[in-house]
Amino acid sequence: MAESMQGIKRTHRCGELSGANAGQTVTVMGWVQKNRNKGGLVFIDVRDRSGIIQIVFEEGSTDSGLIEKAAKLRAEFVVAVTGEVKKRSGAVNENLSTGDIEIIPSQLRILSESETPPFPIEENSKTKEEVRLKYRYLDLRRPDLQKNMIMRSQVATLTRQFLAEEGFLEIETPILIGSTPEGARDYLVPSRIHQGHFYALPQSPQLFKQLLMCSGYDRYFQIAKCFRDEDLRADRQPEFTQIDMELSFVDVDDVIDVNERLLAKLFKDVLGVEVVLPIPRMTWQEAMDRYGSDKPDTRFGMELTDVTDVVKDCEFAVFKGAIENGGTVRGINAKGQGGMPRKKIDKLVDFARDFGAKGLAYIAVQEDGSVKSSFAKFMKEEEMSGLIEAMGGENGDLLLFAADKNKVVWDVLGNLRLELARQMELLDKSEYKFLWVTEFPLLEWNEEQERYTAMHHPFTMPMEEDLEYIDTDPGRVRAKAYDIVLNGNEIGGGSVRIYHQDVQNKMFEVLGFTPEKAQEQFGFLLNAFKYGVPPHAGLAYGLDRMVMLMAKEDSIRDVIAFPKVKDASDLMTEAPTAVEEKQLEELGLSVTVQE
Amino acid sequence: MAESMQGIKRTHRCGELSGANAGQTVTVMGWVQKNRNKGGLVFIDVRDRSGIIQIVFEEGSTDSGLIEKAAKLRAEFVVAVTGEVKKRSGAVNENLSTGDIEIIPSQLRILSESETPPFPIEENSKTKEEVRLKYRYLDLRRPDLQKNMIMRSQVATLTRQFLAEEGFLEIETPILIGSTPEGARDYLVPSRIHQGHFYALPQSPQLFKQLLMCSGYDRYFQIAKCFRDEDLRADRQPEFTQIDMELSFVDVDDVIDVNERLLAKLFKDVLGVEVVLPIPRMTWQEAMDRYGSDKPDTRFGMELTDVTDVVKDCEFAVFKGAIENGGTVRGINAKGQGGMPRKKIDKLVDFARDFGAKGLAYIAVQEDGSVKSSFAKFMKEEEMSGLIEAMGGENGDLLLFAADKNKVVWDVLGNLRLELARQMELLDKSEYKFLWVTEFPLLEWNEEQERYTAMHHPFTMPMEEDLEYIDTDPGRVRAKAYDIVLNGNEIGGGSVRIYHQDVQNKMFEVLGFTPEKAQEQFGFLLNAFKYGVPPHAGLAYGLDRMVMLMAKEDSIRDVIAFPKVKDASDLMTEAPTAVEEKQLEELGLSVTVQE
Repeated sequence: MAESMQGIKRTHRCGELSGANAGQTVTVMGWVQKNRNKGGLVFIDVRDRSGIIQIVFEEGSTDSGLIEKAAKLRAEFVVAVTGEVKKRSGAVNENLSTGDIEIIPSQLRILSESETPPFPIEENSKTKEEVRLKYRYLDLRRPDLQKNMIMRSQVATLTRQFLAEEGFLEIETPILIGSTPEGARDYLVPSRIHQGHFYALPQSPQLFKQLLMCSGYDRYFQIAKCFRDEDLRADRQPEFTQIDMELSFVDVDDVIDVNERLLAKLFKDVLGVEVVLPIPRMTWQEAMDRYGSDKPDTRFGMELTDVTDVVKDCEFAVFKGAIENGGTVRGINAKGQGGMPRKKIDKLVDFARDFGAKGLAYIAVQEDGSVKSSFAKFMKEEEMSGLIEAMGGENGDLLLFAADKNKVVWDVLGNLRLELARQMELLDKSEYKFLWVTEFPLLEWNEEQERYTAMHHPFTMPMEEDLEYIDTDPGRVRAKAYDIVLNGNEIGGGSVRIYHQDVQNKMFEVLGFTPEKAQEQFGFLLNAFKYGVPPHAGLAYGLDRMVMLMAKEDSIRDVIAFPKVKDASDLMTEAPTAVEEKQLEELGLSVTVQE
Repeated sequence: MAESMQGIKRTHRCGELSGANAGQTVTVMGWVQKNRNKGGLVFIDVRDRSGIIQIVFEEGSTDSGLIEKAAKLRAEFVVAVTGEVKKRSGAVNENLSTGDIEIIPSQLRILSESETPPFPIEENSKTKEEVRLKYRYLDLRRPDLQKNMIMRSQVATLTRQFLAEEGFLEIETPILIGSTPEGARDYLVPSRIHQGHFYALPQSPQLFKQLLMCSGYDRYFQIAKCFRDEDLRADRQPEFTQIDMELSFVDVDDVIDVNERLLAKLFKDVLGVEVVLPIPRMTWQEAMDRYGSDKPDTRFGMELTDVTDVVKDCEFAVFKGAIENGGTVRGINAKGQGGMPRKKIDKLVDFARDFGAKGLAYIAVQEDGSVKSSFAKFMKEEEMSGLIEAMGGENGDLLLFAADKNKVVWDVLGNLRLELARQMELLDKSEYKFLWVTEFPLLEWNEEQERYTAMHHPFTMPMEEDLEYIDTDPGRVRAKAYDIVLNGNEIGGGSVRIYHQDVQNKMFEVLGFTPEKAQEQFGFLLNAFKYGVPPHAGLAYGLDRMVMLMAKEDSIRDVIAFPKVKDASDLMTEAPTAVEEKQLEELGLSVTVQE
């Protein structure tokens, strides 16, 4: 049976000790990381969240009973050790912050024993993620995950501190709200008191934060849990966290200003990285034209070139057909990749097809100036050289072209550009390139539903100069919306909101809401708009993704303490689970499927 | 149509202006609070969250077009005013922080118009709460609610800052978890991917924070949303907020120490109130004996006196019977209430019956020393005088007695004591009396389920010296549990946790869990206990209630931005609502009740 900690008190965390403590008697508590017996010596590494300290049990200087006890310690036992800090007599361990000291123990207590864990507690674990998630409480002991969780906590603390100083109030909005079919799928919560009725979990605090502006709170923020019942892609979680904010009496520039200073503070204080302000801005149109993406990774070039004019008279049917159908021909230049083997190029063509391309035309300029191309035979020689010139093609370059409707061309080349950057190892995780993307289209055409849907959400303010097109050419109307992009990831986005009832009604009309439906779903917001609403705007960050990038991780699961897997289940707790029949009866529900 | 804010910028919030700004040109934005025309003068009071400023439109100094525009302003219009700050020429308004200044406007824009609101935006509203909750976005404009929300934000900010400085990490735990039938009723969330299975919303992050200790995070905190699907009493909400914390390698005193300093900081920084440390401590037994309550209001005395020994030989059947049944006779002395009219005393008797008393015996000592009593006829004279003496009864006092099992006696007199204090106006909301109540019973007998249930929760550590009784006399075992009580309200509570698997298994056994059931429900925690668990302890505050007391409010609805009412519905959004059939189909559910 393990011992209690009655009568002893921890004086330091392990990693807090240094040479400055030499000669002091200290008490540390933590987990046994390693136990080595060497001659009459027993070395124990004790670990806590701050680091590792070595304890040395040596015949002569340590009581022999203690040495015996120490020799029996196994990995992950929890111990309390009291002893004197000494400069190491042996070699300094450069891998440890405490590598030049050790503790000579006078007392050892075993607070808790451990079975052999299913995988070793170590950095860069090679254990399958599934196993680690099942034993998440052990996985979370690994120093890399601990570093991530500590960083996440730091980001939250600094954010709150900064926003409080800027006059933002932290106000909690409800989790049990009404369901609004617009947007992603809601998680529902059955009501017991009102059987047959349901709450929904919020996809964001959007409506409530706008109401708070309507109520005069001026500046609101919240680090808010949000929920979406979507089929999970690699990097989505059913519940995720937003840094959510809203400001009154502001326009685009005010929101951007406060957020640039927030980002600069976070990256400076957490990572020591200087973010040069102002962060560059780019309109959505320019981002699509130059990078084929509304969230361009600007750590590298390889920009898109529109060569429609150059090839408009050529006989290559693919180019010709695309142009005749109102599309364009655009290309990217993968510098120095002209020697890429045919097989690898074919893989790029397959990759392009995954994004909707019918094919991918290429010109591989060889080092000797000769050219291998999939479509040279359809082109005159001067057309080819004109095209290579337009692309800035030099000996050794690989030129890749897509020809289709703009949307497809952008998507294909935008993704191809990223794929090539990965292959060419152009992406450095320790480089942080921010970009504001602005002037997004207000609406996008939804082929499936055959109607316009809001690109941001139905409360986004149209740009005043485009309002005249809202009835005749809705797709042309730009919005006062902005995204903040980091290394090709959208880490946040927001907009100036509509604050006049008539504009909001017009927006619902364009989105195909009947006045009744709008009233039914957003009645309380429309009603609020009757009583004096300030101009307001806001922004929300995806905290999980932001911290993931700061921690240089590839998955948000590595910055969430208890994440769910792709099928939205929790491998540790096994949630969701069956419940007792009585619980369903109380809710007036029955399950219509076989389990 | 209202105007835009293009080209203008707010320079100050209204309440931020003072005599120091005299002579400056400023721009304020806010809501029209009042509009008075007086001769050629128009006075507009503009309100924002910081306060109110008066704008004076005067013929001669203001453009006549502006005066006309101003005269048309109505309550709750949103305006932007640019003008010069001047010392008031007229009388200073002592009710306003800006009462000695006014703005002479050069520009006025109407940013948004308002219909006449359904109730006036003013302090101490007399409008029915139901109406105010339906129009919560307007109710939230009232200065008293704004003051509360700002205070709540301040409490959260200071708490986070303090705990971060004390080495606590803020770690988010999941909202979609597994259902655990122990405790209150869970809110369920049907899974779409795993049809027929359900998540639950957490009643607290208890299990997860213990796992985080197991994972070595050492000090965790979170301001966490918690959920309970209970029939709502006056002061309960389906979702509520906890300041939740857990610490490793600590015992009771360590938790109390850090929390006393937290409370002292909050009350000092938010209210300017000095909390004298250390906060007094009282065992549960003493609290029950002296106050008949495990959350005594120590702002006043009127303590319980055990007179069992004094009356044990008397012939009054009620006293005699209670003592013979193993009960006690106890009384309280309502000083100076001896002249209470019989009708009012009868009401106290009814009040006592509501708490399970069969009756209430009284002795009203008159100012002349004579005695009116409900049971004098059953007592000898010396017995009466002995009883009065034991109660410290003096001329003019009202002595009230309950005789029953201890549990009933405590409950009756504890509540009677509070009721009398209300009647006697002994309760001062600006006085803050803190108290730690410690050494709670580990278990309490649940008559309905005919088993012991955990008084705190199943993870609470028994006191080592009582462990020997756990099999033979479980009710006698005290726990390392503590509550922090403020003015008779439990604002927080916690315990040292069990961290050894064998003690935890024993606890489950006493609670009537089969090993299989324990494994099914808490398997992941029991498994975690196999791999080295540190001694740990924690505490959670009810943030809503704490802020309610700080704001001197009577309802937590007044410190929650968007609260629900007693039937758990939201009067503003009308949640919960019916949902589309398609949504239920996707979940594999059907509603079995008629709506």
